[in-house]
Amino acid sequence: MAAEAAANRRIVLRSHVTGFPKESDMGLVATGTAPSRVPEGTAGAVLLKNLYLSCDPYMRGRMSKHEEPSYVPDFVVGEAITGYGVGKVVDSSHPGFKAGDYVWGSTGWEDYSLIKDPSKALFVIRHPELPLSYYTGILGMAGFTAYVGFHEICAPKEGERVFVSAASGAVGQLVGQFAKLMGCYVVGSAGSDDKVKLLKEKFGFDDAFNYKKEKDLNVALKRCFPEGIDVYFENVGGAMLDVVLLNMRVRGRIAACGMISQYNLDLPDPVHNLTAVIVKRLRIEGFVVSDHYGRYREYEETVARYVKEGKIAYVEDVAEGLENAPAALVGLFSGRNVGKQVVVVARE
Amino acid sequence: MAAEAAANRRIVLRSHVTGFPKESDMGLVATGTAPSRVPEGTAGAVLLKNLYLSCDPYMRGRMSKHEEPSYVPDFVVGEAITGYGVGKVVDSSHPGFKAGDYVWGSTGWEDYSLIKDPSKALFVIRHPELPLSYYTGILGMAGFTAYVGFHEICAPKEGERVFVSAASGAVGQLVGQFAKLMGCYVVGSAGSDDKVKLLKEKFGFDDAFNYKKEKDLNVALKRCFPEGIDVYFENVGGAMLDVVLLNMRVRGRIAACGMISQYNLDLPDPVHNLTAVIVKRLRIEGFVVSDHYGRYREYEETVARYVKEGKIAYVEDVAEGLENAPAALVGLFSGRNVGKQVVVVARE
Repeated sequence: MAAEAAANRRIVLRSHVTGFPKESDMGLVATGTAPSRVPEGTAGAVLLKNLYLSCDPYMRGRMSKHEEPSYVPDFVVGEAITGYGVGKVVDSSHPGFKAGDYVWGSTGWEDYSLIKDPSKALFVIRHPELPLSYYTGILGMAGFTAYVGFHEICAPKEGERVFVSAASGAVGQLVGQFAKLMGCYVVGSAGSDDKVKLLKEKFGFDDAFNYKKEKDLNVALKRCFPEGIDVYFENVGGAMLDVVLLNMRVRGRIAACGMISQYNLDLPDPVHNLTAVIVKRLRIEGFVVSDHYGRYREYEETVARYVKEGKIAYVEDVAEGLENAPAALVGLFSGRNVGKQVVVVARE
Repeated sequence: MAAEAAANRRIVLRSHVTGFPKESDMGLVATGTAPSRVPEGTAGAVLLKNLYLSCDPYMRGRMSKHEEPSYVPDFVVGEAITGYGVGKVVDSSHPGFKAGDYVWGSTGWEDYSLIKDPSKALFVIRHPELPLSYYTGILGMAGFTAYVGFHEICAPKEGERVFVSAASGAVGQLVGQFAKLMGCYVVGSAGSDDKVKLLKEKFGFDDAFNYKKEKDLNVALKRCFPEGIDVYFENVGGAMLDVVLLNMRVRGRIAACGMISQYNLDLPDPVHNLTAVIVKRLRIEGFVVSDHYGRYREYEETVARYVKEGKIAYVEDVAEGLENAPAALVGLFSGRNVGKQVVVVARE
C-alpha cells in the first residue's frame, strides 16, 4: 500500500479515438515514484502537485490523430493526457515560481507533473483565497474564453439580444452573465429541464429552452427572439447554427467558440443557411483564447471582484479522484455534466 | 412604326420565380408614350433616358417572393425590373441634376425612367470621357463592391495568398487585379477554359483553374495553394466554400460577397467544414456595397485613373437591345457571360 501510494498515477490515452470517446479509450497507470524535487540539472522547471483538473470540450480534438497539425497537438498514445488544471508548486528551479505557489495552466492528468517551461504554461494564482477549483473555470481558461469571446469577438452593445448555446456549461453560464451585466437581453439553450431552470433561476438569463424538447429549433428561436438575434455565442454548431443564421438580425455577430455537437462526427452536420451571411451582413469569427492571454491579469482582477461581490454565480460539477477523470471527460459529450466539469485529484 | 418607336418599352416580371429563372419569366411590354419631361408638379425628380443596364447576380433574389424583407425589395409582378444602369438626364426638377448629365445608379429596365428621389438613387458620372458602360461595372456598383470587399472586409496584406471564385465575372476580375496591385499572390476559379485563359493572360492572375474540369476541388486548391489561403473572396458558396474552409490558413478572412451557386436552389447546398472557423480563427463577413457608398467618389477617382493609365483591364459581355435583357440576366446563372454582363438600350 505504501509503495502504491507513492506511485505517480496518471491517466494515459490508450488509443486514438474516432467517433464518440469512451472511458476505455483512457486508462489509469501507476508507475514510478511520486517525485518531490525538480531533477538535478533541470533549470527553469517546476514540479507541480496537481489538485484540480479541467475537462474541456476542445480536448476531444486532441484525442484523434490528425494529419495536419491543429492549434494544440494531438495526445500521444501511452502518455498522460494533458489539459488545464490547478496545482501547487512542490519544487522550482525557475525564478518566477516558488514552492508553495498555487498555479493554473497546462499540466498533466497525473498526481505530479514536471513543467519544463512554466512561464509559458502556468499563471501564479493571485487570489488563492477564492476556491482554487475556480481557476479551472471562471477564473481560468473557460472564464477568460467567455470574456474575450463575448466582449471582443461579439462586440456587444447595451440592449442587444444575445443567444448562448450550451448555456449552462463552463463558458456559456459566464457569457450569459457577462451579457446581463452589460444590459443585454439573454436567452440560453441547454439539454435538460434542470439546466434550463439553472439558467433562469441561478444565472439570471431572461429566457431559456431545452433544445431536446423543442420539435423545431426555428420555432423556439422565433418565440424567444421575435425581433431576431444580434449576438450569438456559438458553442454547439450543426443544426443549431443553421437555424440561428435564419434568425440573426442585420449586422449580427457570431463568435465561434466551440461546436461540441460536431466533434465526434466523421462527417460534420450540414449547414445550409450561409447565404444569410451576405443578406444580413453577418460576421462569423472564430477565436482561440490562448491568443489573448496577454490580458488575462486584468480579467482575473475584474472577475475575482465580481465573485467576491456576488455579482456572478458559478456552478461546478465535481468528480472526485483522478481515476474518475476519464468518465468526467467523456460525460461532456453527452451533456451529463451540470456546470463546469472539474476533477479533484487532491484538495491540498 | 412611328407610334411603336415612341412607346416606352419596358421589361416586366411576369411572375415570381422559383428555381432557375427563365427568359419567359420576364417579358417586353410597349405601352404609353416615351416621355420627354418630368411631369408638371413633380418636384425633385429626373427623367432618364436609359443607355446601359447592368445584369447582376443579386437580382435573382428580387425575382422571388419573400415572406421577410431582404436588403432590397422583391420585384413587383407586372412592373418593370429595376437594377443598376447608366442613363442620360433628359429633364430634371431636382437641383442636383440637369438635362444632359450622365448618371449611374438605380433605374428601370425600360427606355425612359422617372426617378423620384434621384439624390438617393443616382450618382452624376464625373468621367464621361471613359466608356459610359463602365459605370455599370468597374466604375459602378460591381467595381466598388470588389474594392470595398477586398480592401475593407478582407483586410489584405502584401504577399498574402488570395483566392477569388467566379473570378472572371464583373466583381471577380477586379478583386484579382486589386489584389495584384497590392502585391498578393492571386488565384481564380471560373467555369470555362476560355475564362481561365482570360484570368491568366488578361487580368494577370498568378494561376487559375476551371472548376468544372476538376475532379476534386480540394486537390485543385491544394495544388494552387500548397501553404493555404489567407483571403477568400466568396462569390459562389456551396461546395467551393466547403473546400476553401479546409484550405484556409490561420487567421484567414473570407469576404462573403455573393453565393451565385446557391440562389436558385430550394435547399442550399450543405457546408460541413465550419469547425475550421474555430480551429483556424477565421473571420467570415458578409457585406452589402450600398452600406459603403459614402466613399464612392474616392473610388471613382482612383479607378478612373487606373483605367486611364492602363493599370487595370476590364472585360464586358455586351448584349444589344432591351429586348435581349432577359436572356442576358438569365445567362449569369449558367455562367454564359464572359466578363461583366451589360445590356445596351441606347448608345446616346
